[in-house]
Amino acid sequence: MKRVVVNIYLKEGVLDPQGKAVHHALDSLGFGEVVEDVRIGKQIVLKLNSASDKEAKEEAIKMCESLLANTVIENYDIEISDV
Amino acid sequence: MKRVVVNIYLKEGVLDPQGKAVHHALDSLGFGEVVEDVRIGKQIVLKLNSASDKEAKEEAIKMCESLLANTVIENYDIEISDV
Repeated sequence: MKRVVVNIYLKEGVLDPQGKAVHHALDSLGFGEVVEDVRIGKQIVLKLNSASDKEAKEEAIKMCESLLANTVIENYDIEISDV
Repeated sequence: MKRVVVNIYLKEGVLDPQGKAVHHALDSLGFGEVVEDVRIGKQIVLKLNSASDKEAKEEAIKMCESLLANTVIENYDIEISDV
Protein backbone atom coordinates (compact mmCIF):
# COMPACT_ATOMS: atom_id res chain seq x y z
CA MET A 1 0.00 0.00 0.00
CA LYS A 2 1.27 3.44 -0.94
CA ARG A 3 0.51 6.85 0.51
CA VAL A 4 0.27 9.35 -2.32
CA VAL A 5 0.17 13.08 -1.56
CA VAL A 6 -1.11 15.22 -4.42
CA ASN A 7 -0.61 18.97 -4.06
CA ILE A 8 -2.77 20.99 -6.42
CA TYR A 9 -2.15 24.71 -6.80
CA LEU A 10 -3.18 27.50 -9.13
CA LYS A 11 -0.76 28.30 -11.92
CA GLU A 12 1.38 31.41 -11.65
CA GLY A 13 -0.65 34.41 -12.81
CA VAL A 14 -4.06 32.87 -12.12
CA LEU A 15 -6.04 35.02 -9.70
CA ASP A 16 -6.46 33.41 -6.27
CA PRO A 17 -9.40 35.13 -4.55
CA GLN A 18 -9.29 32.76 -1.56
CA GLY A 19 -5.62 33.61 -1.05
CA LYS A 20 -6.39 37.32 -1.34
CA ALA A 21 -9.15 37.02 1.27
CA VAL A 22 -6.84 35.20 3.69
CA HIS A 23 -4.09 37.77 3.04
CA HIS A 24 -6.53 40.54 3.90
CA ALA A 25 -7.69 38.73 7.05
CA LEU A 26 -4.06 38.25 8.14
CA ASP A 27 -3.49 42.00 7.60
CA SER A 28 -6.45 42.76 9.85
CA LEU A 29 -5.02 40.49 12.54
CA GLY A 30 -1.76 42.44 12.61
CA PHE A 31 0.36 40.24 10.32
CA GLY A 32 0.44 42.92 7.58
CA GLU A 33 4.14 43.67 8.06
CA VAL A 34 5.28 40.09 7.76
CA VAL A 35 3.01 38.62 5.06
CA GLU A 36 4.04 39.28 1.46
CA ASP A 37 1.88 36.79 -0.39
CA VAL A 38 -0.68 34.04 0.22
CA ARG A 39 -1.68 31.30 -2.22
CA ILE A 40 -4.12 28.53 -1.35
CA GLY A 41 -4.18 25.10 -2.87
CA LYS A 42 -5.48 21.63 -2.12
CA GLN A 43 -3.66 18.68 -0.66
CA ILE A 44 -5.21 15.32 -1.44
CA VAL A 45 -3.89 12.29 0.43
CA LEU A 46 -4.65 8.98 -1.27
CA LYS A 47 -4.03 5.44 -0.08
CA LEU A 48 -3.50 3.26 -3.13
CA ASN A 49 -3.21 -0.51 -3.53
CA SER A 50 -0.21 -0.28 -5.81
CA ALA A 51 2.72 -2.65 -5.85
CA SER A 52 5.38 -0.11 -6.74
CA ASP A 53 6.02 3.63 -6.52
CA LYS A 54 6.04 3.78 -10.31
CA GLU A 55 2.60 2.18 -10.57
CA ALA A 56 1.20 4.46 -7.82
CA LYS A 57 2.55 7.53 -9.60
CA GLU A 58 1.02 6.49 -12.93
CA GLU A 59 -2.38 5.94 -11.30
CA ALA A 60 -2.16 9.26 -9.47
CA ILE A 61 -1.33 11.12 -12.71
CA LYS A 62 -4.36 9.51 -14.40
CA MET A 63 -6.58 10.61 -11.47
CA CYS A 64 -5.23 14.15 -11.59
CA GLU A 65 -5.75 14.47 -15.33
CA SER A 66 -9.27 13.00 -15.27
CA LEU A 67 -10.70 14.39 -12.04
CA LEU A 68 -8.55 15.94 -9.34
CA ALA A 69 -6.91 18.88 -11.08
CA ASN A 70 -8.24 21.42 -13.53
CA THR A 71 -5.13 21.46 -15.70
CA VAL A 72 -6.22 24.62 -17.51
CA ILE A 73 -5.56 26.70 -14.40
CA GLU A 74 -3.88 24.31 -11.95
CA ASN A 75 -0.59 22.48 -11.62
CA TYR A 76 0.06 19.51 -9.40
CA ASP A 77 2.90 17.57 -7.88
CA ILE A 78 2.88 14.05 -6.50
CA GLU A 79 4.83 12.57 -3.58
CA ILE A 80 4.79 8.87 -2.84
CA SER A 81 5.74 7.00 0.32
CA ASP A 82 5.08 3.59 1.85
CA VAL A 83 2.31 3.16 4.40
CA MET B 1 12.17 36.22 2.55
CA LYS B 2 10.88 32.78 3.50
CA ARG B 3 8.49 30.46 1.74
CA VAL B 4 6.27 28.79 4.31
CA VAL B 5 4.07 25.87 3.31
CA VAL B 6 1.26 25.13 5.77
CA ASN B 7 -0.56 21.84 5.27
CA ILE B 8 -3.88 21.71 7.10
CA TYR B 9 -5.73 18.42 7.34
CA LEU B 10 -8.64 16.97 9.28
CA LYS B 11 -7.75 15.04 12.41
CA GLU B 12 -7.93 11.27 12.33
CA GLY B 13 -11.53 10.20 12.92
CA VAL B 14 -13.11 13.43 11.74
CA LEU B 15 -15.52 12.80 8.88
CA ASP B 16 -14.25 14.12 5.54
CA PRO B 17 -17.28 14.47 3.23
CA GLN B 18 -15.21 16.08 0.46
CA GLY B 19 -12.81 13.15 0.55
CA LYS B 20 -15.71 10.69 0.47
CA ALA B 21 -17.19 12.46 -2.57
CA VAL B 22 -13.87 12.32 -4.42
CA HIS B 23 -13.43 8.65 -3.45
CA HIS B 24 -16.87 7.92 -4.89
CA ALA B 25 -16.08 9.85 -8.09
CA LEU B 26 -12.80 7.94 -8.49
CA ASP B 27 -14.74 4.67 -8.07
CA SER B 28 -17.09 5.76 -10.86
CA LEU B 29 -14.13 6.51 -13.12
CA GLY B 30 -12.80 2.96 -12.71
CA PHE B 31 -10.22 3.53 -9.96
CA GLY B 32 -12.25 1.57 -7.40
CA GLU B 33 -9.78 -1.33 -7.27
CA VAL B 34 -6.78 0.81 -6.56
CA VAL B 35 -8.11 3.53 -4.23
CA GLU B 36 -8.35 2.62 -0.53
CA ASP B 37 -8.83 6.02 1.04
CA VAL B 38 -9.02 9.71 0.15
CA ARG B 39 -8.56 12.64 2.52
CA ILE B 40 -8.61 16.25 1.40
CA GLY B 41 -6.84 19.10 3.09
CA LYS B 42 -5.59 22.59 2.34
CA GLN B 43 -2.14 23.72 1.41
CA ILE B 44 -1.43 27.38 2.11
CA VAL B 45 1.77 28.84 0.69
CA LEU B 46 2.90 32.03 2.43
CA LYS B 47 5.74 34.37 1.59
CA LEU B 48 6.94 35.97 4.81
CA ASN B 49 9.39 38.81 5.48
CA SER B 50 11.15 36.92 8.24
CA ALA B 51 14.85 37.02 8.95
CA SER B 52 15.20 33.43 10.14
CA ASP B 53 13.47 30.09 9.81
CA LYS B 54 12.71 30.17 13.54
CA GLU B 55 10.97 33.56 13.27
CA ALA B 56 9.00 32.43 10.19
CA LYS B 57 7.85 29.30 11.98
CA GLU B 58 6.72 31.25 15.05
CA GLU B 59 4.72 33.67 12.89
CA ALA B 60 3.19 30.79 10.92
CA ILE B 61 2.13 29.02 14.12
CA LYS B 62 0.47 32.23 15.35
CA MET B 63 -1.40 32.54 12.02
CA CYS B 64 -2.54 28.92 12.15
CA GLU B 65 -3.79 29.21 15.71
CA SER B 66 -5.62 32.50 15.12
CA LEU B 67 -6.99 32.09 11.60
CA LEU B 68 -5.80 29.40 9.22
CA ALA B 69 -6.62 26.17 11.04
CA ASN B 70 -9.63 25.12 13.06
CA THR B 71 -7.64 23.34 15.75
CA VAL B 72 -10.73 21.61 17.14
CA ILE B 73 -10.92 19.37 14.08
CA GLU B 74 -7.73 20.09 12.13
CA ASN B 75 -4.01 19.51 12.49
CA TYR B 76 -1.32 21.34 10.60
CA ASP B 77 2.33 21.04 9.72
CA ILE B 78 4.70 23.74 8.59
CA GLU B 79 7.63 23.53 6.15
CA ILE B 80 9.99 26.45 5.65
CA SER B 81 12.41 27.16 2.83
CA ASP B 82 14.25 30.17 1.42
CA VAL B 83 12.85 32.07 -1.54
